[in-house]
Amino acid sequence: MSEQIDVDFGDTGLVPAVAQDADSKDVLMLAYVSPEALDKTLETGRAHYYSRSRDELWEKGASSGHTQSVREVRVDCDADTLLYLVEQEGGACHTGHESCFYRTIDGETVGTKVFDPDAVYE
Amino acid sequence: MSEQIDVDFGDTGLVPAVAQDADSKDVLMLAYVSPEALDKTLETGRAHYYSRSRDELWEKGASSGHTQSVREVRVDCDADTLLYLVEQEGGACHTGHESCFYRTIDGETVGTKVFDPDAVYE
Repeated sequence: MSEQIDVDFGDTGLVPAVAQDADSKDVLMLAYVSPEALDKTLETGRAHYYSRSRDELWEKGASSGHTQSVREVRVDCDADTLLYLVEQEGGACHTGHESCFYRTIDGETVGTKVFDPDAVYE
Repeated sequence: MSEQIDVDFGDTGLVPAVAQDADSKDVLMLAYVSPEALDKTLETGRAHYYSRSRDELWEKGASSGHTQSVREVRVDCDADTLLYLVEQEGGACHTGHESCFYRTIDGETVGTKVFDPDAVYE
């Protein structure tokens, strides 16, 4: 029988988590996760992260409605990075794009805009 | 005309970079990138990272042969995370798996082993 993997939260107490659309496989965003955020994610099935700037646990989409239903959580070989396979409601990015990775390094927009941020965030 | 995006390397001088298989769209690994590693990646078309434990620039696959040919580099909305879309030679993970994310948080192996690490790393 397999056992839950012991995640290495290191000195900062946080690990990066990549959110990937479970169906399209698009990489949607990267955010940070605390032990409590991971517990909440596993407990509720909705993606939780830890905001380094606001210094608090947050549930993705709690204010925008753009929640992430988590189908699976994966751990990398060193157990210091997570991968959330999610079903994304609306768009993942606060700019209105489906993915936060909507630009190439050359500044070309390659991602799709799926909502109007002015209508969502007041 | 679009211009190269100014990446925010922050206090640490490093940003996380997610490597994604450009064809299968599997998330392969996460590693860190310095300004020099990004320059080398763009210049050579092969994925370069910065090792925090060895404190040095490294080219993925330089010793194992499991190089990553970079088809596109994307930047997230805050310009503090990169996404490398790559063609992976062999497997990305030192354990022999195609992806470093070969396990669920519950310890179940879901990834594919594509090479024997004992035969590659001496």
